[in-house]
Amino acid sequence: MAKLQSLFSMRHLLVLSLALNVSLILRIIYDSQLDLFFYKYPHQGQISNLHTHNKPRLLISSSFSNSSSSSTCEDHHQPPPKNNNRVINLDHGDPRVYEAFWRETGEKTTIRIAGWQSMSYFSDVSNVCWFLEPEFAEEVVRLHRVVGNAVTEDRHLVVGTGSSQLFLAALYALSPTHSPQPISVVSASPYYSSYPSMTDYQKSGLYKWGGDADKFDKSGPYIELVTSPNNPDGCVRRSVLNRSEGLLVHDLAYYWPQYTPISSPSNHDLTLFTLSKTTGHAGMRIGWALVKDKEVAKKMTKFIELNTIGVSKDSQLRAAKVLRAVSDSCELQGGGESFFQFSHKIMSDRWKQLREAVQRSNGFFSVPTFSPSFCTFFNQNLEPHPAFVWLKCERNVEDCESFLRGHNILTRSGTHFGVSQQYVRISMLDTDENFMHFLHRLSTINFR
Amino acid sequence: MAKLQSLFSMRHLLVLSLALNVSLILRIIYDSQLDLFFYKYPHQGQISNLHTHNKPRLLISSSFSNSSSSSTCEDHHQPPPKNNNRVINLDHGDPRVYEAFWRETGEKTTIRIAGWQSMSYFSDVSNVCWFLEPEFAEEVVRLHRVVGNAVTEDRHLVVGTGSSQLFLAALYALSPTHSPQPISVVSASPYYSSYPSMTDYQKSGLYKWGGDADKFDKSGPYIELVTSPNNPDGCVRRSVLNRSEGLLVHDLAYYWPQYTPISSPSNHDLTLFTLSKTTGHAGMRIGWALVKDKEVAKKMTKFIELNTIGVSKDSQLRAAKVLRAVSDSCELQGGGESFFQFSHKIMSDRWKQLREAVQRSNGFFSVPTFSPSFCTFFNQNLEPHPAFVWLKCERNVEDCESFLRGHNILTRSGTHFGVSQQYVRISMLDTDENFMHFLHRLSTINFR
Repeated sequence: MAKLQSLFSMRHLLVLSLALNVSLILRIIYDSQLDLFFYKYPHQGQISNLHTHNKPRLLISSSFSNSSSSSTCEDHHQPPPKNNNRVINLDHGDPRVYEAFWRETGEKTTIRIAGWQSMSYFSDVSNVCWFLEPEFAEEVVRLHRVVGNAVTEDRHLVVGTGSSQLFLAALYALSPTHSPQPISVVSASPYYSSYPSMTDYQKSGLYKWGGDADKFDKSGPYIELVTSPNNPDGCVRRSVLNRSEGLLVHDLAYYWPQYTPISSPSNHDLTLFTLSKTTGHAGMRIGWALVKDKEVAKKMTKFIELNTIGVSKDSQLRAAKVLRAVSDSCELQGGGESFFQFSHKIMSDRWKQLREAVQRSNGFFSVPTFSPSFCTFFNQNLEPHPAFVWLKCERNVEDCESFLRGHNILTRSGTHFGVSQQYVRISMLDTDENFMHFLHRLSTINFR
Repeated sequence: MAKLQSLFSMRHLLVLSLALNVSLILRIIYDSQLDLFFYKYPHQGQISNLHTHNKPRLLISSSFSNSSSSSTCEDHHQPPPKNNNRVINLDHGDPRVYEAFWRETGEKTTIRIAGWQSMSYFSDVSNVCWFLEPEFAEEVVRLHRVVGNAVTEDRHLVVGTGSSQLFLAALYALSPTHSPQPISVVSASPYYSSYPSMTDYQKSGLYKWGGDADKFDKSGPYIELVTSPNNPDGCVRRSVLNRSEGLLVHDLAYYWPQYTPISSPSNHDLTLFTLSKTTGHAGMRIGWALVKDKEVAKKMTKFIELNTIGVSKDSQLRAAKVLRAVSDSCELQGGGESFFQFSHKIMSDRWKQLREAVQRSNGFFSVPTFSPSFCTFFNQNLEPHPAFVWLKCERNVEDCESFLRGHNILTRSGTHFGVSQQYVRISMLDTDENFMHFLHRLSTINFR
């Protein structure tokens, strides 16, 4: 009996030991992957905080090329390194801020597509937008209902390769076909910096950039772009030209609870949304338009047909999965945080820290202030937390972008947005690490 | 002992029985899915043989709307039903023909992407084409090496949302920026039917459709589109205008061993390829360009940046997996058929049957004939098997498209390709089922 007991103990020990081995091996694999996420990479060209994604992500920063080739795994609660040569690129709005949420979701948001699936060009020939995946359409409608930020009834849904393609499709669809002159496309400044180049790069005879809507004095038809909340300054906007011949495109990329209080469901003729700013999935290149007029939806579909013969089915199916997870996180909370609670908290924390840093500049910098308003989604009064900081250099600095570049902070000058170079736009959506470096860098500037 | 033996037998039997139950349940699930693949769907709009893909695929055909709502699972070896009201749509080149191969590959070509992966806009900032996934680039280069159909050395690879987007990017990149007049874009007729509308739909001031290259007599710079083998007629082509001011875009969508003998690696300034015609994955919307001149590659990249801010990462990663499977099937054959053996056999069989059907028309129809030539990939003399039939109605039928439409066969008239309406283009890439219906329908036409 004693021998049997000893034998069992031996077996138990062996099993325990093997389990421990497996656990240790897994831990080693996990740690080595974590190391790779913070691998240092030499600076290439202008873009410095970017990375490849099919491999474990590479952190790219110019200063690292001079420092060391070893990898570090930084704890974000530690103070950032005091290396002021490192270039912090906050020019782009690459939405890295929400990755932690998506890591937590695990298998629930993992997509599997077999080699033989989704091979055809066509998704749903009963739909005006024949390349729209019904599963994606369903989740878009559901999310707008859950958030309460857009009326989807009596609307045609058009999917696009990001909202950029839908922006161009909208210009194409709204332009008069047989007009001798291109229709003017205007937006109140500061306007999204890409609008002028996106409108004019093809030198289209259908539409032409007409500049600041506030200064637009031509008679006849025009297209006005209304971005609300606005990129770059975060302000809630309405059309500034209220003429009968105006055609409106509402770009509501940032009309989500983490950025701005939801006041009521938007209800416009043509509204654009994009996954990149909603959930942070910029790499999918998925956007959607809610379109009241069937003929406009048909023309937008025609544009996408001629431009790219539809939109990636893989990304539409993946987007459906991601949007479903967002809606589920809001509707079926099992004690966990919803996506918008998570993202709102991050944006709120970042803005608090940013405002403190601006305050420490003793009036050297200023940023817009926003009054709180009632958010129907969170059911309380809340302040907006825009995706970008619209920063102004207040003292004798004429060119704020150059000034910050001198401190190795890359931003986008106000001149790109149709206003003075005293302003810059700074992304608030980058990684925690870059955001902390940015705050630290601001604290090292000598404001004399 | 006998009792123990009987107990073991009981256990064995139970295990066998349970295994059998599982196998039967799986079989039932599999069969019910197969049924759904041939589900009948009412005809919607003009497109009749299309289907949704995020659900099990739906076969859509107008005649079915009148017949029944039940599902059938047809055996392709059975003669097709003698229902001449069914509309057979062979107008589009939806490449359904290769699905059986991809079903066979199973898990090997199944892609898994976690919710947190591929979120950034950026793929490889060290590359001129910053949104190009390195994994995809690697597999493109490998496949061209395996097939021997394109030189990739000293080329910049630009990925696009299908080759349509790359076609537009090429026009943008090759057009002179400050010319008072748009550059002429020409192609020898019969040319791809979408070239004129894709060139002119934006009414660009940079480029303009100039028609048939053979009739082009304007002096000065021009862009010539060379499609080889040609869509619609399958002929091998070279530039027809050999002037010093000509800029060439080679569209080699069909320069793969299943369609045409590979003579040598193509070696041009700007060459376009597309996944849809290579492997049949049209729904991914992935194409690529091989570009000699760095500045041209940069301008093409800029076009895609302004058009769609990059190309779906999900589809690039999936395309990499599919291309890897094709190369593996050629290089690591374990007795199985390579993708090109499989696809070449299907195309060869279809063309044999098609030619027999045309012969039975007693000179009513004619199709091009092709001489065999040496294929460096298959290492033997082979005939071409184009992706489309370029059919001519020889007798007193002036409008071949209308004639076939009268027999519920939808095709694309020669007028769209810049030639007479005596010609039509017919897709050879549709499902086995539709192809068999098509052959049967031809056999029912009374050629008097």
